Amino acid sequence: MAFRFEIIKKDPSSQARLGRIQTSHGSFLTPTFLPVGTQGTVKSLTPEDLVENGVEVLLCNTYHLYLRPGYEIIGRLGGLHRFIHWDKPILTDSGGYQVFSLSSLRKLSEEGVTFQSHIDGSFHSLTPEKVVEIQRVLGSDIAMVLDECIPYPSDYKYVKASIGLTTRWAERSLKARQKSDPPLFAVVQGGTYPDLREESAMALVKMGFQGYAIGGLSVGEPKALMMEVLRWTLPILPESHPRYLMGVGTPQDILDGVLFGIDLFDCVLPTRNARNGVLFTSKGKISIKQSKYAEDEKPIDEGCFCYTCRHYSRAYLRHLYLSKEILSSRLNTIHNLYYYMSLIKNIKEAIQEDRLTEFYKTHYPKLEGLEEENSNQL
Amino acid sequence: MAFRFEIIKKDPSSQARLGRIQTSHGSFLTPTFLPVGTQGTVKSLTPEDLVENGVEVLLCNTYHLYLRPGYEIIGRLGGLHRFIHWDKPILTDSGGYQVFSLSSLRKLSEEGVTFQSHIDGSFHSLTPEKVVEIQRVLGSDIAMVLDECIPYPSDYKYVKASIGLTTRWAERSLKARQKSDPPLFAVVQGGTYPDLREESAMALVKMGFQGYAIGGLSVGEPKALMMEVLRWTLPILPESHPRYLMGVGTPQDILDGVLFGIDLFDCVLPTRNARNGVLFTSKGKISIKQSKYAEDEKPIDEGCFCYTCRHYSRAYLRHLYLSKEILSSRLNTIHNLYYYMSLIKNIKEAIQEDRLTEFYKTHYPKLEGLEEENSNQL
Repeated sequence: MAFRFEIIKKDPSSQARLGRIQTSHGSFLTPTFLPVGTQGTVKSLTPEDLVENGVEVLLCNTYHLYLRPGYEIIGRLGGLHRFIHWDKPILTDSGGYQVFSLSSLRKLSEEGVTFQSHIDGSFHSLTPEKVVEIQRVLGSDIAMVLDECIPYPSDYKYVKASIGLTTRWAERSLKARQKSDPPLFAVVQGGTYPDLREESAMALVKMGFQGYAIGGLSVGEPKALMMEVLRWTLPILPESHPRYLMGVGTPQDILDGVLFGIDLFDCVLPTRNARNGVLFTSKGKISIKQSKYAEDEKPIDEGCFCYTCRHYSRAYLRHLYLSKEILSSRLNTIHNLYYYMSLIKNIKEAIQEDRLTEFYKTHYPKLEGLEEENSNQL
Repeated sequence: MAFRFEIIKKDPSSQARLGRIQTSHGSFLTPTFLPVGTQGTVKSLTPEDLVENGVEVLLCNTYHLYLRPGYEIIGRLGGLHRFIHWDKPILTDSGGYQVFSLSSLRKLSEEGVTFQSHIDGSFHSLTPEKVVEIQRVLGSDIAMVLDECIPYPSDYKYVKASIGLTTRWAERSLKARQKSDPPLFAVVQGGTYPDLREESAMALVKMGFQGYAIGGLSVGEPKALMMEVLRWTLPILPESHPRYLMGVGTPQDILDGVLFGIDLFDCVLPTRNARNGVLFTSKGKISIKQSKYAEDEKPIDEGCFCYTCRHYSRAYLRHLYLSKEILSSRLNTIHNLYYYMSLIKNIKEAIQEDRLTEFYKTHYPKLEGLEEENSNQL
């Protein structure tokens, strides 16, 4: 399968870079953010909505699609792109994270993991080889290896054993890969231990994957610790390959990650927050249900050009949210996604124009200050 | 307020007519169908979606908007059109039907009706005058008088007294009307009693409204009886005025109503069915959750040009429905609404081209036969 990563420009004062990833379903610029289309849809939105809001690449969850409708059905229907009406790149995760967070009666062995479906309690097992096969059949553009996702905190001894397993699984994944398979990204684990992150990263890099993800972050550890993990890990990952920070994060996390040289981010934050009525604005987050918006005819964010802000008042959006209207989720999701993709656009432009540090300095504290100021209201 | 109804063409072999209604927010052709935007949104759709699917006039529920967010708030925010981002005509109902079907502790008097909100149990009262005021403040393009909505069956004596009240309320509504108010439609009641329908219709026509609705149908009475009521009532209503069959109905009901000379229809059927996974097709209704669609790559209806049928398979729509995805409601609603608006378009063209009877003869039995054939599966 076609896959190429090229660096277009490097930021002179950080590890940030502007890049381009070429896949079988077209190319996209990095750094970028992947919205989460868990069950083959970014909740409430159509593919046309995603494109309109600047999305170029989508994440779908292997675990969910494997359980329902089943990867073989999707394969027989012509693959995931055709099934969900999305002709741009799709990255699929390995399903590992969901097995460890959603399913019950998990049993881990050298071979793989067996678990009970969170939907109907049926028994399943995933192995590194099976996960490669599933993503092949789905027709994903970037596939991930199966890894063990450990909680925070986990003790040193456990994490050390776990990265051993994750490394052996990564090796088996590579062996299971067929020539026409999608490019495969490995996942660096190692919890919050510098030497284990280093050990994990070095072992994976030695095997030679098309890209490297950093997993096991944004699982409850302090933000500063997440930054430390990036500081330890990134220098080990080859500059020539894309780097993906899984499940992260807030707008600030994204800015920080870019400075460390991260190219890809995914997170449910903008979409899940939207459905809960929590909206990102240039002045911090707001909770649309608050009574102070009952007669507020202003848009969510006066400087925003998204469809929602162009046509609807806070008062109407509050009404839709309180009335539990489906349109509430849709309009809020459009806004939050537009917010994230605008941040991405600004970051890319700043790298291109050699002013990322300046952008960071003016943008970051503004976001952070207002987040804190508003946090008690949410 | 600007309001004009003109008949463009009469069908030579039935009472059907092609007409045009002019309002302050533009004109639309009749017969037409009004989707129901209960709380100021047709569930899951944007106004742009409505237009794309052929909708020209929208129904909003006074009862719901009165309770939440409150009609005065909507008024202060510039009226209902601006609030919901819809610049075409809006017809508002009187709230009567919802008071009688949704609220609790109703108390009816000569003055009006008091009731408890179904949302928070708060006490409210509506009078004919208040209902005229609410619709004035909302800025509706066609307003309805408050009427008593009686269940089916109701005994003769009760219905007779009720139409007396509804008639007196209609008279008070007319008196409460100010010069710049929206056009006011009266509602013919009278249950399933020919003489009471006649009495109600004659009394209202004598007062002189801008249009006449037929209420109290599609509330559980046999279909044949609904047709009887139309047969008794329609000849009494002036040909020069628009006639509105409230809360009706199935595609067959609409075809029948048009033949009787009905100009306006509204119903939750296409939108509610959509959210329940029941979809209208040229071969009858289907229930998308059925396992036979699990690997069906065909669109809902192979002859349909709606957005949903152009891009999505039955298999994907079944997956979205079973996964309780928001997009399921949205894609299904688009399809069903397109189906209804296409029927309306075909009816208008058939009248224009003097072939309504032919259209009825070929179209009606096809729908009905297949409805029955499929009914056990639903």
